[in-house]
Amino acid sequence: MTRRVTDPAELFSAARSGDRLARARLLSLIERGGDDARAIGRLTYPLSGSAYTVGLTGAPGAGKSTLTSAVIAHLRSLGSPVAVLAIDPSSPFTGGAILGDRVRMQEHATDDEVFIRSMATRGHLGGLSLATSESIRLLDALGSPWILVETVGVGQVEVEIAGKADTTVVVVNPGWGDAVQANKAGLMEVADVFVINKSDRKGAAETQRDLEQMLDLSDLDASAWRPPIVQTTATASTGISDLWNAVLAHREFASQSGELGRRRTVRLREELREIIERRLEDKARELCTGTRWDTLQDEVLEHRVDPWSAADEMLKGIGG
Amino acid sequence: MTRRVTDPAELFSAARSGDRLARARLLSLIERGGDDARAIGRLTYPLSGSAYTVGLTGAPGAGKSTLTSAVIAHLRSLGSPVAVLAIDPSSPFTGGAILGDRVRMQEHATDDEVFIRSMATRGHLGGLSLATSESIRLLDALGSPWILVETVGVGQVEVEIAGKADTTVVVVNPGWGDAVQANKAGLMEVADVFVINKSDRKGAAETQRDLEQMLDLSDLDASAWRPPIVQTTATASTGISDLWNAVLAHREFASQSGELGRRRTVRLREELREIIERRLEDKARELCTGTRWDTLQDEVLEHRVDPWSAADEMLKGIGG
Repeated sequence: MTRRVTDPAELFSAARSGDRLARARLLSLIERGGDDARAIGRLTYPLSGSAYTVGLTGAPGAGKSTLTSAVIAHLRSLGSPVAVLAIDPSSPFTGGAILGDRVRMQEHATDDEVFIRSMATRGHLGGLSLATSESIRLLDALGSPWILVETVGVGQVEVEIAGKADTTVVVVNPGWGDAVQANKAGLMEVADVFVINKSDRKGAAETQRDLEQMLDLSDLDASAWRPPIVQTTATASTGISDLWNAVLAHREFASQSGELGRRRTVRLREELREIIERRLEDKARELCTGTRWDTLQDEVLEHRVDPWSAADEMLKGIGG
Repeated sequence: MTRRVTDPAELFSAARSGDRLARARLLSLIERGGDDARAIGRLTYPLSGSAYTVGLTGAPGAGKSTLTSAVIAHLRSLGSPVAVLAIDPSSPFTGGAILGDRVRMQEHATDDEVFIRSMATRGHLGGLSLATSESIRLLDALGSPWILVETVGVGQVEVEIAGKADTTVVVVNPGWGDAVQANKAGLMEVADVFVINKSDRKGAAETQRDLEQMLDLSDLDASAWRPPIVQTTATASTGISDLWNAVLAHREFASQSGELGRRRTVRLREELREIIERRLEDKARELCTGTRWDTLQDEVLEHRVDPWSAADEMLKGIGG
């Protein structure tokens, strides 16, 4: 019988020695938030900064998981270890919609150099965004050279999370309107590389043309990066090395131009703001309990106090 | 030349005398948040509580706007004034996706007893939820007996906003899987009335059967409300009085059983929590500016301080 380790420092040290279970537990603590997540953040921060993060995003059904799996295989064929975070913010009620992804990535389940982790919302989108940053940092501190972040869905939060990557790959499919949808959802703004997956289907050339046109219209200045468009058929592993070469080309550009450093700075500032917001939310939860809170709520319900004055009253203690 | 009135109290008094422009300005101030929104909240709270709120929600393309327009016409034929809030949280980047709704409701544009207002995210989902509550309260305080709240999209926030209504109508279309989608998106949990709109299309009977089956499986106890299922063809105004009678039946049930009071209490508690969160966010924004913030950020960027310790430092002032 082994004792279940829950101390972040102890887990972190075990994870650094290659203990996969310890790594998984640290990620669970990060997802949960609170003091343990803070302790982990303090441990990982000084050791992070070497990993390169690649985000994959696009509409549900675009084939992102199959593509991610093919990219994993490509990196493994180059001898590189890889870590994957599969994020699903779109499923607040079931929390189980990511099972499919895991199934599709199953082929790598027995490979010790591949680490795949699914994360769901648990009803708190802001929390997920922060947990993603912290999880990336943990995997970075534990020595993963490549971290793939796959996000499902095309809402605001998905775009936000996709933007946490050093290189963001936007996945579309052949077919009228898909490129237009990507534009509408704000994906054009975060794309560093476009992938037309399922390119063996009808309409790939038209989608390529649509994307090129949108890029022509997007008014990039001459020194800016123009996202390359790569066609893949992930199910047949076709085009995967082209995709990876496009990622490497963007990495090269971003490093040389200083864009990578700028992006990481913006991200860190954003994360700091998220940490502060999260801490304030914890504070709010803490405030919204107890006898004083119950009394005040009753007064509001009886129309003796309006909600705004009640909030003022509750916030008095914290200089709000 | 008239002076542009911006004082909430003055605007509120003008709006109470029937000034539609003043009402629109008050809603803009609520959307913007901050001190003016608080002032309006304090003015409206004592005067609110008489309106009945009906939420309409469902997937994009289900025909909610056309249905809303038909419901407006029905209420007008009964001689009742009506106010509509059309909420679109799904469009953070364009902010203009709701134009279509307005076009579809155009037929009521010249009717003084109909008030229609579109609200978009402006990048802050939590803020939209609170602004919806406050806008409902304003329209209530201004004497609207019926407030229709139409939400576009089926994500977590949409379901949350739909839940702000006294009666929530969930709109689906005929076709395999639509009922299943509604279930997956959490809509079954908020539905008081189901509408199968576009019921002249193939598959209406099957969708009805699917919904009935899901309700059979949902383990309602004997005293609970079982959501009726109404078939409509909004474009031809077919089934609209059936729909409205189902809403009235639910209102009757909710009033008699005490469910309406319980719901309103839960909503008010939720709103109070949202107000406190919002105030803390404002506080965070206020904290995250200035020289001290700049210095601290630089220290984090230079890896001299980790983000969590930096947050602690920033929050010292508010007992965080």
